[in-house]
Amino acid sequence: MKIDILSLFPEMFDGFLKTSIIKRAIDKEVVDIQIHNFREFTHDKHKHVDDYPYGGGQGMVLMCQPILDCLKTLTTDDSLVILMSPQGITLKHEVATKLSLEKHLIIICGHYEGFDERIRDYVDLELSIGDYVLTGGELGSMVTCDAVIRLLEGAIRQESHEDDSFADGLLEYPQYTRPLEFDGNVVPDVLLSGHHENIRKWRKYQSLKKTYLKRPDLLENYEFDKEALEMFNEIKKKS
Amino acid sequence: MKIDILSLFPEMFDGFLKTSIIKRAIDKEVVDIQIHNFREFTHDKHKHVDDYPYGGGQGMVLMCQPILDCLKTLTTDDSLVILMSPQGITLKHEVATKLSLEKHLIIICGHYEGFDERIRDYVDLELSIGDYVLTGGELGSMVTCDAVIRLLEGAIRQESHEDDSFADGLLEYPQYTRPLEFDGNVVPDVLLSGHHENIRKWRKYQSLKKTYLKRPDLLENYEFDKEALEMFNEIKKKS
Repeated sequence: MKIDILSLFPEMFDGFLKTSIIKRAIDKEVVDIQIHNFREFTHDKHKHVDDYPYGGGQGMVLMCQPILDCLKTLTTDDSLVILMSPQGITLKHEVATKLSLEKHLIIICGHYEGFDERIRDYVDLELSIGDYVLTGGELGSMVTCDAVIRLLEGAIRQESHEDDSFADGLLEYPQYTRPLEFDGNVVPDVLLSGHHENIRKWRKYQSLKKTYLKRPDLLENYEFDKEALEMFNEIKKKS
Repeated sequence: MKIDILSLFPEMFDGFLKTSIIKRAIDKEVVDIQIHNFREFTHDKHKHVDDYPYGGGQGMVLMCQPILDCLKTLTTDDSLVILMSPQGITLKHEVATKLSLEKHLIIICGHYEGFDERIRDYVDLELSIGDYVLTGGELGSMVTCDAVIRLLEGAIRQESHEDDSFADGLLEYPQYTRPLEFDGNVVPDVLLSGHHENIRKWRKYQSLKKTYLKRPDLLENYEFDKEALEMFNEIKKKS
């Protein structure tokens, strides 16, 4: 996959591109990420990329020309152009899964004071990472990249994300590692039993229970099998 | 405000801390952010911070000891301890607003393969930035910091966030800047009229309309005044 990101703050991506899974995915050529500073595309001799809003008001508004001229140099038939914006559809695991099937993502990072409305005409998808306001689109674009890249073949071990929260529609079951007792808290017996079937059942039950207690809304889209339904009835009875 | 972040990847924060609003807020002493690598707190001679999960399964699980020993050195009576986790409550504008009233945030960044369940006993709040899985808690902690810090007095001009999407419960109205015509698209007349009252009304109407078309769910918590209600009825009639 190829990802091009348009941003006024390319240096903000340094740590992200050089760390952990993302660095490994880049090194293994699973993904190619390039950051483009659209300030280089302005025709203004002072390199301004924003201007006062028509109709008055606080703050400056990003102009069409630098962003769209930069965009033109990158777009091909395979490109999906994304604009990070609080007005976009909200990123979810399913959205990340769909995006992971694309060949080429172009992500435009807005600016916290806003951008010219006409830029929206040139994008395929407006994307928000949640109902909160951020300084700019940079963190949102990194979050999007991270959520998508880890789903690409070869980025992480395939099995690693099968147990993820959200991947099967439930929150993840509790995990424990050494020591057996920490500050008076002991690891549940079943996990020490070596009985694989019981461990599987316990984990499924705990996943259902956590989801029911913390995020019951997720259960609306969960496909219960017979076992899950029986467990769920027991959980509801007990709580 | 003071923010301490516990992470295995401190270098990932470099760009974030040195850019734009966050850098300015740090320079103006609106906020003090320190990153702590809890690997320095391990007693393991190989500096391991994770171990195999009890009960088997893929991946490694972060151990209690390094994280909690690091936490102990930072916690005071004023601290709110946050764990970034897909199982937490979802960050929203209102959550960020509440967090902005705290004196001291400690944010623990988890690891994508999970952490020992018993760590949850030592945190005040589990926080998720959205329903997607990320490589680790680092990006989530930056998103949380960004959403909170820009609300602190002195971080940005006060007026700048009064018009933000979500701040008043609606999406932001369309913004335009020069040129007057771009690629055949012209700035709406009203914004050139100089008639402040008409501009105010147009913007309010457009905010309502955008929210109705893109995020009708946000309207459930919006407090309609008489003018907004009249506008809203007109919008519904027309669409």
